[in-house]
Amino acid sequence: MTEEQLRAACALAAEAMAEYYRLLPGRPIMPATTSRALRDLLEEPLPREGSELAPLIDAIRRDIFPNSRQNAHPRFFGYVQSPGTPAGVIGEMLAAVLNANVTCWRSAPAPTEVERIAVNWIKQILGYPPAAEGLFVSGGSMANFAGLAAARTVKAPEALQHGMGGQRLRVYVSEEAHFSVSKAAALIGIGRENVRRVATGADFRMDVAALERAIGEDLRAGHTPCCVVANAGAVSTGAFDPLGAIAAVARRHGLWLHVDGAYGGFAALAPEARPFFDAIAEADSVALDPHKWLYLPMGCGCVLYRDPAAARAAFSHFAEYTRPVGWRDDEAFAFWDYGPELSRPFRALNVWLLLKYAGTRALGEAVSRNIACARYVGRLIEASPDLELMAPVELSIFCFRVAPPGFTGDLDALNERILVELQRQGSSYLSNASLRGRFALRGCVLNYRTSEAEMERLVEDVRRAARAVLAEG
Amino acid sequence: MTEEQLRAACALAAEAMAEYYRLLPGRPIMPATTSRALRDLLEEPLPREGSELAPLIDAIRRDIFPNSRQNAHPRFFGYVQSPGTPAGVIGEMLAAVLNANVTCWRSAPAPTEVERIAVNWIKQILGYPPAAEGLFVSGGSMANFAGLAAARTVKAPEALQHGMGGQRLRVYVSEEAHFSVSKAAALIGIGRENVRRVATGADFRMDVAALERAIGEDLRAGHTPCCVVANAGAVSTGAFDPLGAIAAVARRHGLWLHVDGAYGGFAALAPEARPFFDAIAEADSVALDPHKWLYLPMGCGCVLYRDPAAARAAFSHFAEYTRPVGWRDDEAFAFWDYGPELSRPFRALNVWLLLKYAGTRALGEAVSRNIACARYVGRLIEASPDLELMAPVELSIFCFRVAPPGFTGDLDALNERILVELQRQGSSYLSNASLRGRFALRGCVLNYRTSEAEMERLVEDVRRAARAVLAEG
Repeated sequence: MTEEQLRAACALAAEAMAEYYRLLPGRPIMPATTSRALRDLLEEPLPREGSELAPLIDAIRRDIFPNSRQNAHPRFFGYVQSPGTPAGVIGEMLAAVLNANVTCWRSAPAPTEVERIAVNWIKQILGYPPAAEGLFVSGGSMANFAGLAAARTVKAPEALQHGMGGQRLRVYVSEEAHFSVSKAAALIGIGRENVRRVATGADFRMDVAALERAIGEDLRAGHTPCCVVANAGAVSTGAFDPLGAIAAVARRHGLWLHVDGAYGGFAALAPEARPFFDAIAEADSVALDPHKWLYLPMGCGCVLYRDPAAARAAFSHFAEYTRPVGWRDDEAFAFWDYGPELSRPFRALNVWLLLKYAGTRALGEAVSRNIACARYVGRLIEASPDLELMAPVELSIFCFRVAPPGFTGDLDALNERILVELQRQGSSYLSNASLRGRFALRGCVLNYRTSEAEMERLVEDVRRAARAVLAEG
Repeated sequence: MTEEQLRAACALAAEAMAEYYRLLPGRPIMPATTSRALRDLLEEPLPREGSELAPLIDAIRRDIFPNSRQNAHPRFFGYVQSPGTPAGVIGEMLAAVLNANVTCWRSAPAPTEVERIAVNWIKQILGYPPAAEGLFVSGGSMANFAGLAAARTVKAPEALQHGMGGQRLRVYVSEEAHFSVSKAAALIGIGRENVRRVATGADFRMDVAALERAIGEDLRAGHTPCCVVANAGAVSTGAFDPLGAIAAVARRHGLWLHVDGAYGGFAALAPEARPFFDAIAEADSVALDPHKWLYLPMGCGCVLYRDPAAARAAFSHFAEYTRPVGWRDDEAFAFWDYGPELSRPFRALNVWLLLKYAGTRALGEAVSRNIACARYVGRLIEASPDLELMAPVELSIFCFRVAPPGFTGDLDALNERILVELQRQGSSYLSNASLRGRFALRGCVLNYRTSEAEMERLVEDVRRAARAVLAEG
């Protein structure tokens, strides 16, 4: 590619980007299509001959962009989903130009330093100890996996060498924990049944007395309590487990404390959420997702370890072909000693760029506005006789259901149908949760474009979907 | 950001890209810097206020780009490292614009179909069965992890629920295997000591008789043979284990066969390497790295499973908040049933884009040219009385050492010093390997820009480094 071709390709991609953001507010959030229809559109034989780049950029713009879920739409409230930002696009682009492989210092000197700086900034945002270390991983599931693997290694250090020897290591999570915790426990040989789901209170936060009882039962049964995982924003309700009380229990029993802040970790940027983080420095590891509430594009999770040696014990691995020849001290540093990956993309660049571009003040204001939007819709719901708020609005997640006065049918079935209809209509998007066995419409505000007007429109859209479902009978 | 600002930012990033490629051939591959110097340059307090994007792009161009290892340089031969491509930059950019989260069909309809298409194309490139399934992961370490996790689940299905119960599952690898296999075995509770390193022949390929003996010993000792990992291009030498003979042993003993094709998998594009892949269809899982020999930017690995049900057994996990409400059949498909991640970036876009942009014919020619360059330097080395080829050149990796006629000192120590000097000089870059305990200078040709002239220049650079070291005494 000549420089002229390269500039032309970038200009075309820039136009595709400008068009994307221009069309976004008017697009249905979810395209009305099927797997079959998309295969008919996209499927083709393995290309033997190449083609020009311009028509391929056009195909992406024309065939792929509109046939995706529009995560950046201001009324997309499903799951925990960042909208991305234009600056994040520039960051991904420049990271791909350099194409650093951030395995270790000597493979990527400046990128390694940028990663350290970005990790240090995140520690400061959280109030996490300066001596902690951390690194970027592909997302929250891998960050939870890494925290659990470190916990396992502390409690069963022989397992790395000899395999897990049938000891019953026990992991304690609230019943609201994310499935990646159980999944990680299954993968690292602890087993799903050794993940104990501790009851929560009316506020969906872990009941610390129940945690204490569970640990006691396990000790009497001869099991080995290993790790407590606290939610720093539970996935269904946003409930923030009481870190200080949990840390005290963990310390008393010598357990690893892992904090799953994949959703809520960057709420620390907002003054009203700061008190939740008072005891964060006591966590042995923390999982975060810059690709969630730091508004970055997908593919950037983060794990922090209070004691770097514990992480090295779990992940460090020697091979002659990666031995540092001629490098020592800081220049012999390797990220693979702290996580499951060897080759790693330059994820830190976008974290660094975003924090410098936006600054923590504006980011904190954006997080605060998201929380305010969720509280606002919470008040709208509480003021509505046909809607029922199902959990306190702690951060930016809200759970509710439609409960028409006088309706005597199955509210779970009704709300499932309302959810499907809402998604089909395409103007607002919620996802689902189950709270104490009851079906909930669940939303999460994670878009800096979202305003209170969008929350009002969401309520209208839900009512419209409800009317459509009720009219069908 | 207005459309004009967005266009201007893209244009600045495009200029940074054009400049990057323009300056590349003249840049030292490894910057002469230190961790301390880079911290002094880059470190700053957590930014509270934001800044304009233009100076940040400029800082990346000015401070970060030149202070990295230049992986796209035509004489960068270290490790197994893709140069990236300008088309790959466009792909990353457009993936970040859409910011799809490819967890499942309903979260990303077109991206899910694009991933299926790209995976199907890769299956065709390899000659892997049409009924296989696969997905993109962050890299080869995770792909090997996923293959081993599936193998463990087949041999010890109860471990997901109950934890690993002290059974001695045995994994067989050649002594040339990548460390990610042992690392994965340690993480999933099998334990490093249960990874048996099988001897290799003079060609560094797994000795199949030794594999058979190791399995027999383990069976007599009451252990549980679980999995054979075959190298489809070993990391140190490029040796390609004999898949057909290994598959026969694996089948006879009911073992899972995982093929680590992170380095060599896409050699299947080159006619001269095709015969190595004759038995690939018998592999139960295959790890590949499009971010290596498909020349894509970092962050794209791939794992394929012959029997998709085995992968689902290992990875599938239910949670109410991810339950498909209103979706069935193809539209209820979830990638998290096949790998460790939940949220996933749209890695497939760049695979799809690259295969359509370049086509398999040109890609195969590029791979062939890489192999030809390695063979060429192998011949140059063999014709040189002062150089010693240390392993056959099977794919695009070459291992050698400087052995000056009459030199009676320690050749290992001499070549270590030569490597350090070569990297310091910055014109060519090799990495290190240990072959039968001897220190080797190791190179891997993985850049479509590399020509035979670069190989001649490499030999000159090595001789220059050797002279400098020998002159120092």
